[in-house]
Amino acid sequence: VSDDRMAQRRRSWWGWGWEDQAIQGDELAGLAAVLAERFQRPPATVVDPVEPASIELPRPRVELPAALAHLGSADPLDRVRHGHGAAFRELVRALYGDVPRVPDLVVRPTSAADVARVLGWCTDARVACVPWGGGTSVVGGVTPPEGPCVSLDLERLDAVLEVDEVSLAAHLQGGLMGPAIERALEPSGLTFRHFPQSWEFSTLGGWIVTRAGGHFATGPTHIDDLVEAIGAETPTGRWDSRRLPASGAGPSPDRWLLGSEGTLGVVTDAWVRLQRRPRSRAQATVAFPSLVAGLGAVRAIVQDGLAPANARLLDPVEAALAGAAPPDGDATVLVLGFEAPEAPLDAPMARALELIGDHGGVVRDGPSFRRGDRTGTAQGGAGAWRQAFLRGPYLRDAVARLGGVAETFETATTWDRAAALVSDLRDTAERAARSVCGDALVAVRTTHAYVDGVAPYVTVIAPGPEGVAAGPARGRAQAAAWDEVKQAVSEAIDAAGATITHHHAVGRDHRPWYDRQRPDPFARALRSARRELDPAGVLGQGLLVDRVADPATSAPPTDPERRDPTA
Amino acid sequence: VSDDRMAQRRRSWWGWGWEDQAIQGDELAGLAAVLAERFQRPPATVVDPVEPASIELPRPRVELPAALAHLGSADPLDRVRHGHGAAFRELVRALYGDVPRVPDLVVRPTSAADVARVLGWCTDARVACVPWGGGTSVVGGVTPPEGPCVSLDLERLDAVLEVDEVSLAAHLQGGLMGPAIERALEPSGLTFRHFPQSWEFSTLGGWIVTRAGGHFATGPTHIDDLVEAIGAETPTGRWDSRRLPASGAGPSPDRWLLGSEGTLGVVTDAWVRLQRRPRSRAQATVAFPSLVAGLGAVRAIVQDGLAPANARLLDPVEAALAGAAPPDGDATVLVLGFEAPEAPLDAPMARALELIGDHGGVVRDGPSFRRGDRTGTAQGGAGAWRQAFLRGPYLRDAVARLGGVAETFETATTWDRAAALVSDLRDTAERAARSVCGDALVAVRTTHAYVDGVAPYVTVIAPGPEGVAAGPARGRAQAAAWDEVKQAVSEAIDAAGATITHHHAVGRDHRPWYDRQRPDPFARALRSARRELDPAGVLGQGLLVDRVADPATSAPPTDPERRDPTA
Repeated sequence: VSDDRMAQRRRSWWGWGWEDQAIQGDELAGLAAVLAERFQRPPATVVDPVEPASIELPRPRVELPAALAHLGSADPLDRVRHGHGAAFRELVRALYGDVPRVPDLVVRPTSAADVARVLGWCTDARVACVPWGGGTSVVGGVTPPEGPCVSLDLERLDAVLEVDEVSLAAHLQGGLMGPAIERALEPSGLTFRHFPQSWEFSTLGGWIVTRAGGHFATGPTHIDDLVEAIGAETPTGRWDSRRLPASGAGPSPDRWLLGSEGTLGVVTDAWVRLQRRPRSRAQATVAFPSLVAGLGAVRAIVQDGLAPANARLLDPVEAALAGAAPPDGDATVLVLGFEAPEAPLDAPMARALELIGDHGGVVRDGPSFRRGDRTGTAQGGAGAWRQAFLRGPYLRDAVARLGGVAETFETATTWDRAAALVSDLRDTAERAARSVCGDALVAVRTTHAYVDGVAPYVTVIAPGPEGVAAGPARGRAQAAAWDEVKQAVSEAIDAAGATITHHHAVGRDHRPWYDRQRPDPFARALRSARRELDPAGVLGQGLLVDRVADPATSAPPTDPERRDPTA
Repeated sequence: VSDDRMAQRRRSWWGWGWEDQAIQGDELAGLAAVLAERFQRPPATVVDPVEPASIELPRPRVELPAALAHLGSADPLDRVRHGHGAAFRELVRALYGDVPRVPDLVVRPTSAADVARVLGWCTDARVACVPWGGGTSVVGGVTPPEGPCVSLDLERLDAVLEVDEVSLAAHLQGGLMGPAIERALEPSGLTFRHFPQSWEFSTLGGWIVTRAGGHFATGPTHIDDLVEAIGAETPTGRWDSRRLPASGAGPSPDRWLLGSEGTLGVVTDAWVRLQRRPRSRAQATVAFPSLVAGLGAVRAIVQDGLAPANARLLDPVEAALAGAAPPDGDATVLVLGFEAPEAPLDAPMARALELIGDHGGVVRDGPSFRRGDRTGTAQGGAGAWRQAFLRGPYLRDAVARLGGVAETFETATTWDRAAALVSDLRDTAERAARSVCGDALVAVRTTHAYVDGVAPYVTVIAPGPEGVAAGPARGRAQAAAWDEVKQAVSEAIDAAGATITHHHAVGRDHRPWYDRQRPDPFARALRSARRELDPAGVLGQGLLVDRVADPATSAPPTDPERRDPTA
């Protein structure tokens, strides 16, 4: 796709990504037929999104001061777009024009100084501020809180400030999205190599405050490890850390901002670590008789010191969904890949295949080795898997339009508990979805592998609640069904002692379980840090910890911020 | 050395490590002669440490309540040992019996519950508490503050609670020291593989709160990356994080404790990540025509994706000191090593030597490859270097006894500034030491290499101030000379934008420069977190941030806690 063509593309106002990439027409009809057959129901009618101009909005309750007025937008479509993120519960309601809260204004600073000025005004005027990168939060992380509110869209902070080809690092503004970063680095042969699924539509600042996970299975793929220094504006002053490859000077300031979800400040820029673009690649697709056997092989590979770029284990349903195996297959499939700047990868691939053989794995495709082509596309099972990976969020939109429910759950746990957790999550998701929706398709994969554990990922697709006519009530019913499945799976994750999120962040949707997961003294410390940096409480309302603690109970607090903002 | 023999060994009460490992007798006389020749002075007279029983102590100002009394010790030698860490300024004064502050009591909890009870009593009684691991802080991190104070010695929290051989992880109590951890893991063929220079004498809890750096040049060597979960007692409640291989749920609670230097709580236990013991090793020693050429080679190696276990670059002085090169050599020496659990290392070594050749390096020794022997000692330049590494702190003690000054400075910076910083540090250290002491031996090495930067390490040995008779005044004069050199080098580090410490922590000695390094909002946030967790301010007095901010100035605060506690 040419740059011209890219420029003409329109972002979906209610769902994921590009409008022209949505599943529609024959493809959508085909999906309806497949799901109908799978769920033994009549094919669902396709719902078209409402015209966004038809959505009635409250009048803005706030007005920017004259000095900042040029940064603000009260355009209705702008406000609607910034009234929801990309959680299923949000998009299925937006589809029907049901966007319960929109920001009063969208504000687009052009500099860090602008950000400071806007935060200053928000503090003085007691207006909540929701930092906005790409709006791709799937956990309610950008949903506006109650009360006067501006959405702080950082899209104009999109400069590549410096590339240090000696240290392999770059100074980037926080509003830069994935493609712009890689385009800027291409002439130097470098890459940031941070590819979350949302890469096309999400920003550096968003990745930092949500501790985004790149799609590589091992090695430095989490944004945490790729950040060298962070610059941020807090409501009470500028936060700048030094560019350092490593430091032992006190707790890492960067690690306080990583995952802070906008509660401590707004990331305006960061120095990030780069790599030479890989020119050496090796791939193989392997079949296992069971998920447990496959888990054993992945564990053996990472515990042997190998660091595959890709080590995704797909259960039979996931393998079929991803096109990495025949639809009626019963094999667990491992998509395995290695990458290196230049070095040949025969040795690690051979060692990995040896370990795979020890665990009953049989090579289906490969191993293949390629050199030199920087941008070559993956082939075989790996190629199919990558295509399906990028199409995933569009599939979710399509299921919403067909009246169904689609959700993904992800977590991480140590190896000793991995097989039991994966099995429990699959059963829980299936039981919950069947109970609410009558039927369900549940697919399981692993996304990341560590020496001490693994990150399982569960996809649920279910027919929606029946008997509700298309319209906002249907959207709310679909969201309610989603809520029940989410609740059941989240309880299972929590009961297993796993993390409520490996790379989707906490947002509003994970709060009840996050509150059980984080140490209580940590929550108190974070709360007091927020009070110090943001005494008026304009940032991060409803996120991570409540502004006011409820000392009388350790149950999820009842702060109004915490209640479902879209209920 | 057998376990029986180990058990009989005595720790030095004033200096480093084992008494029987100290440089003494002929070896000490030989060192005196070498330094005398180098500095063109008459050989120094050897000073023997005073009898610790001769040190007069103030009477304890506090008394434990009956329920805790069995945990306390008012033994004078115990109090003297806990009255100083292992900073040069401390040990050179302790040598003369000059220990300005000692804790009123040493308290040895036997459980996390004991720790909580002691913290509760400290809070009620307004008694400062200094958590004590091995007392190896070289930055004044364990120096008692003014006022009533107990030293909380965690040596009885020394249990290996669980080894998870499936996930390669272990649950360890915070008071465990390096050798005990490795002994416990040996039967399983696993290793924690965290080897800071203080490994024999320092504890897991100490490593965590100081962000200790292991001695490996690349890969997971910092304690930060080896911790899976942390348990701690704060004065206001228990802090437990979950065992997770990774998580995106909010800022990492573990990363708040890592580097917290005891200001937020006392680490009682942690789950840590293990590895299989390496059975495959490759080594080579290489000479370069200049430090700049050597830096270029190390950069090329890590930026190529290679991860050597050892990549220490020694300037000619350091190489001679370490016995890795002839005393009159003028070559920069690279000690290069790779390790893996099983895999052959021919390919990475060959690639590294290719890159080394590109940068003018010539192999002096090796490459050699060994398999199978788990505990084999390094040979050639690497073996000599390792011996010298472990003897380093003992050398420092010996220089103190000879009336001289010895100190090491370490930092980290990005590659673009590395060569200039190393040169500047060497010149600054030499100028400052010559100005104060008349002469100086300055040696430079690098300890850790990153894709984006490197950690330089400077050793200074200088004759002490002349004309001060042996006695406490001499000790103070040596400490004052040390102060001046420290000040000059620290200013240079700060001016270059590098970190004031890569792996020695902040303590009291690095505070003025740390205060310039950390973002101001971060300092305010940390201060408020401390207030929340420790309202009476019993923990970490004088460390990281002052309890009361001085908003009128950004200059180093004047809080009495901050002033040199030993002045």
